[in-house]
Amino acid sequence: MNKVGIAAYGITPFTKEDEKIESVLLKSAKNLFEDNTDIDRTDIDTVLVSSNDNSKYLAPILSEMTGIQPKTAHSIENLCNSGTNSIVSGYSYIASGLAEMVLITGAERIDSPGQILKWDNSRGEFKHPIFWASLFSKSYKSRYSVSEEQLALVSVKNHKHAKANPNALSNKTYTVNDVLNSKKITEDLRLLDCSRSCTGSASIILASERIAKKNTDTPIWITGIGQKTTSASFTKKSSFSSMESTQLAGHIALKMADKSPNQIDVAELHDAFSVCEPMALESLGFANLGRGVEVIEENHKTDNFKINPRGGLIGSGHPLGATGIAQTIEITQQLQQEAGTRQVDNPKSGLVHNMSAAATSSTVLVLEK
Amino acid sequence: MNKVGIAAYGITPFTKEDEKIESVLLKSAKNLFEDNTDIDRTDIDTVLVSSNDNSKYLAPILSEMTGIQPKTAHSIENLCNSGTNSIVSGYSYIASGLAEMVLITGAERIDSPGQILKWDNSRGEFKHPIFWASLFSKSYKSRYSVSEEQLALVSVKNHKHAKANPNALSNKTYTVNDVLNSKKITEDLRLLDCSRSCTGSASIILASERIAKKNTDTPIWITGIGQKTTSASFTKKSSFSSMESTQLAGHIALKMADKSPNQIDVAELHDAFSVCEPMALESLGFANLGRGVEVIEENHKTDNFKINPRGGLIGSGHPLGATGIAQTIEITQQLQQEAGTRQVDNPKSGLVHNMSAAATSSTVLVLEK
Repeated sequence: MNKVGIAAYGITPFTKEDEKIESVLLKSAKNLFEDNTDIDRTDIDTVLVSSNDNSKYLAPILSEMTGIQPKTAHSIENLCNSGTNSIVSGYSYIASGLAEMVLITGAERIDSPGQILKWDNSRGEFKHPIFWASLFSKSYKSRYSVSEEQLALVSVKNHKHAKANPNALSNKTYTVNDVLNSKKITEDLRLLDCSRSCTGSASIILASERIAKKNTDTPIWITGIGQKTTSASFTKKSSFSSMESTQLAGHIALKMADKSPNQIDVAELHDAFSVCEPMALESLGFANLGRGVEVIEENHKTDNFKINPRGGLIGSGHPLGATGIAQTIEITQQLQQEAGTRQVDNPKSGLVHNMSAAATSSTVLVLEK
Repeated sequence: MNKVGIAAYGITPFTKEDEKIESVLLKSAKNLFEDNTDIDRTDIDTVLVSSNDNSKYLAPILSEMTGIQPKTAHSIENLCNSGTNSIVSGYSYIASGLAEMVLITGAERIDSPGQILKWDNSRGEFKHPIFWASLFSKSYKSRYSVSEEQLALVSVKNHKHAKANPNALSNKTYTVNDVLNSKKITEDLRLLDCSRSCTGSASIILASERIAKKNTDTPIWITGIGQKTTSASFTKKSSFSSMESTQLAGHIALKMADKSPNQIDVAELHDAFSVCEPMALESLGFANLGRGVEVIEENHKTDNFKINPRGGLIGSGHPLGATGIAQTIEITQQLQQEAGTRQVDNPKSGLVHNMSAAATSSTVLVLEK
């Protein structure tokens, strides 16, 4: 299999602005090309767009706007992990030899139709993700005797990290009491426990070893890929206090990279809601069952940015199709020692965890320098 | 690169029925599994859905409905060539070694939002594909002195072929006069010159050499892949009487398969409108410029089903996301000598041509036994 590296990236602030999807898409791609003027656009043979937007033909539109005439161009959608699905697809084009250089742009508008799970009749009236998040929180707290205060700390920590991320939607910090006193959405969820939808885009270029080395002195390699879909609907889940698809995807990715969880120095986890972060830590093997909150407490106390350095989805905002790509850019910056005040101490390996719809599907990537 | 074969397929009639997209999707996949009871669904590690439907998360939904828990699952959209984009993506997953067995299902409802090119402001008020088809017809007829009668023969021939295809939308045959006297849509297009949108689905399983040989005695191999996107918008095209993206994609695919056009025994061409068939014949090298109509006349006269044996888009109907997959199934059936009364004489190599939006992007596949 051909080696696949990250040759360049571009990202712009996540906002509440009302912009056309084409403009949102273009922003991060423009940023990428402005920051990497050596890139020869005729080398780009594939353009993939990750989005839940209803607009069609976005990959050829982005290609035309950026002056690229690719061979392959199409859009990819799988709700909240559309971004990492696009990265895995781009990887497969290069690893198979069909492509050498792939531009992947994720973009979403604040009113993305991917936010409501209309199709899942097993949810009854409860189509919004807050309902599965409520059940997860109730189940997790009860099963492992975790307090509301402990879960609130996820939001406190991630807003603190987001404050150090110039592209994050949030620029405010909060105390545990602020989180507990924020608007009650359901019995088990407060407003500050939830990631917020927003407008944003993120672009990345994947390349074969030859092209990646030509375009950057510090290519980051994708060495592990794991994906799993256990179901689509809510009621098919075997547990509301762990994430089976994340566990299986993590296992596959770490095995492919020949790494154990303790060899991962920095990780982006899909904290769509507070409870998702400790559950992901446990499902990925970073903590024993019910002990994820202790890792979070320790990292918060020591100001260690190891988990969700850019502020996670809670702090950065969650423009669905862009999220997995923004997560991958953060780990790339960390491994390149370019993460500014968010920089983790000399990381060698990083991990991205991106999931959809009550963790019915997950993607895990391992990145290395 | 690992060899990739077609291990199974399923297809159901294209209709005007108003059905939920989930039901449409399921139909051809169900047909595939009923016709191939030996397939072990736990071997399927990737599920791709090709559609222009606005529904989200369709690949996990199809997976759950068919009892599959894949690693990778997502939707792919690129207007009318979504189907072949999905096949190329599935190919890359297998060729790269990330997957061994990929289920690809294309599905569309009759009211698909992919039929109107809302985004292309260069079209002014003319968002419907009939407007580019009118310009193509006017330009092609004028440049090569081709008559309305000659273009009408495409529809006559393809309706005749569709009559032999039990899954085609059309079951009627027409004369050249019928076509010329059908409702005038624009100065250069009659109703019977146009493919019609419909409800339909088509499923295919791609597999590694090992799995393909396990599941079928007559695997068909994908030996050539070519794709090209020249632009997204209408006015960026260099010519209205030839298809640059088709020419480039065809060149790449034939080169990869090490074939010349005269070694192709049967072809599915993207006749969204009558004029597209001779233009595609010429752009792919099956005829000299302006002489595609002569190939059509000859084939019609001799009752040779070589070009668009299933009736093309004009005769079969055009459920956008399913079309490229249905075309690929037809060539597979032809190479397996399973095409019934549509069977071409002992074909060894076949070709699929699928395109979008005034041929601003094209996919060409070469298939061999």
